Amino acid sequence: MPTALLVHAHSERDSFVTAMRDRIAETLSASGHDLIHSDLYEMGFNPVLSPMDFGERGNPDHLVYALEQRHNFNAGTLAPDLVAEIEKVKQADLIVLTFPLFWFGTPAIMKGWFDRVFISGEFYGGKTIYERGGMAGKKASAAFSLGGREDMVGARGIHGPLVHGMLRHLFQGTLGYVGMEVIEPFVAHNIPYQPLEVRRKCLDDLSAYFADLDSKPRIPIPDLANFGPRFEQL
Amino acid sequence: MPTALLVHAHSERDSFVTAMRDRIAETLSASGHDLIHSDLYEMGFNPVLSPMDFGERGNPDHLVYALEQRHNFNAGTLAPDLVAEIEKVKQADLIVLTFPLFWFGTPAIMKGWFDRVFISGEFYGGKTIYERGGMAGKKASAAFSLGGREDMVGARGIHGPLVHGMLRHLFQGTLGYVGMEVIEPFVAHNIPYQPLEVRRKCLDDLSAYFADLDSKPRIPIPDLANFGPRFEQL
Repeated sequence: MPTALLVHAHSERDSFVTAMRDRIAETLSASGHDLIHSDLYEMGFNPVLSPMDFGERGNPDHLVYALEQRHNFNAGTLAPDLVAEIEKVKQADLIVLTFPLFWFGTPAIMKGWFDRVFISGEFYGGKTIYERGGMAGKKASAAFSLGGREDMVGARGIHGPLVHGMLRHLFQGTLGYVGMEVIEPFVAHNIPYQPLEVRRKCLDDLSAYFADLDSKPRIPIPDLANFGPRFEQL
Repeated sequence: MPTALLVHAHSERDSFVTAMRDRIAETLSASGHDLIHSDLYEMGFNPVLSPMDFGERGNPDHLVYALEQRHNFNAGTLAPDLVAEIEKVKQADLIVLTFPLFWFGTPAIMKGWFDRVFISGEFYGGKTIYERGGMAGKKASAAFSLGGREDMVGARGIHGPLVHGMLRHLFQGTLGYVGMEVIEPFVAHNIPYQPLEVRRKCLDDLSAYFADLDSKPRIPIPDLANFGPRFEQL
């Protein structure tokens, strides 16, 4: 059975985004996935990377976060909350993020999950990025709410393209960067201003989307074949 | 005298990013700015938006973050740490962010500063975005470190354009969105692998950059004249 890790960032049990997470869980479970959860607000996850993450220091005189992530993971001295999250990611075949879009990114509690959990060495390295990234072979997707109308994004929208523009940092620069195959996310627009029947239909559309996730488009990531050993363009 | 607010996100006193913040402070002070600081790690700033930010609830039955931000700011019941930060932003003519780039974004502690401080109503609204945003008339810039070589970004780089591509969420989608005039940031590449003289020169270049910040290029934001009252393209 494939395993799905659902990483969720909303403080409210009765929010639409939490209902999205619950529908995705039901749908993936029905299609034969084992589920693991990281409900970041419920866990009280600490998103702030700091020297407290490191039980010992490879270099006690000067801190370089990425080097200490490598040193501490290998020495078994990385903070236990991070070791647990890294283990969950490694177990997962599919990772699904659910969150309200804040400032064209994930809420800080989820941004810090990437900052602290996606450690140098295991997830990526100088040359091990994109298709060579440490999480190659896994899939990732997302479902998020967005506080604007659908026609405000895209080629003719005021904000420009969403997934390939404003959110490139997340889909290419984070999930794709560590090697995951990134499936186009599901977007719920302008939810607080929608009547109940529109919100119900949105959850039904979400179920249908995740029931057949493998057929959905992938987000292109840079093809390493076009770049040389120092990532110079060939 | 113009006032500059320096918003800083690094845990270490002796980090290169902190040295960048200090150089910017010296330079702006020498060119006649009054300085205000938000040193987020030093302040122990909490980046996690939650119902705890709201002293009372406009709607006790269902939480919509943006609506409660408006309600609580107007009622004088927003969390005091947020009121203080909002006041600093309003006092500032120029805002400068200093941070290490993590996952093509700001560290979670700074992402959460936007999530919690840039409140609906005061900073932006349904139609009050970009040049009509609540912070119109202010300028913003940034100086950040990036863990890759300079040739890995840009039109021919493997990650594509940096400021206008991967970081569009920050410069257009956050600082530009609330109406600030956004000046191209200063980028320090691959610092942990540079010899001391290169790091010294980088700080000197940074001083020169901020000594003459007003002459630097602006980041284009969408021109509202091209869009109708519902932000449809004209």
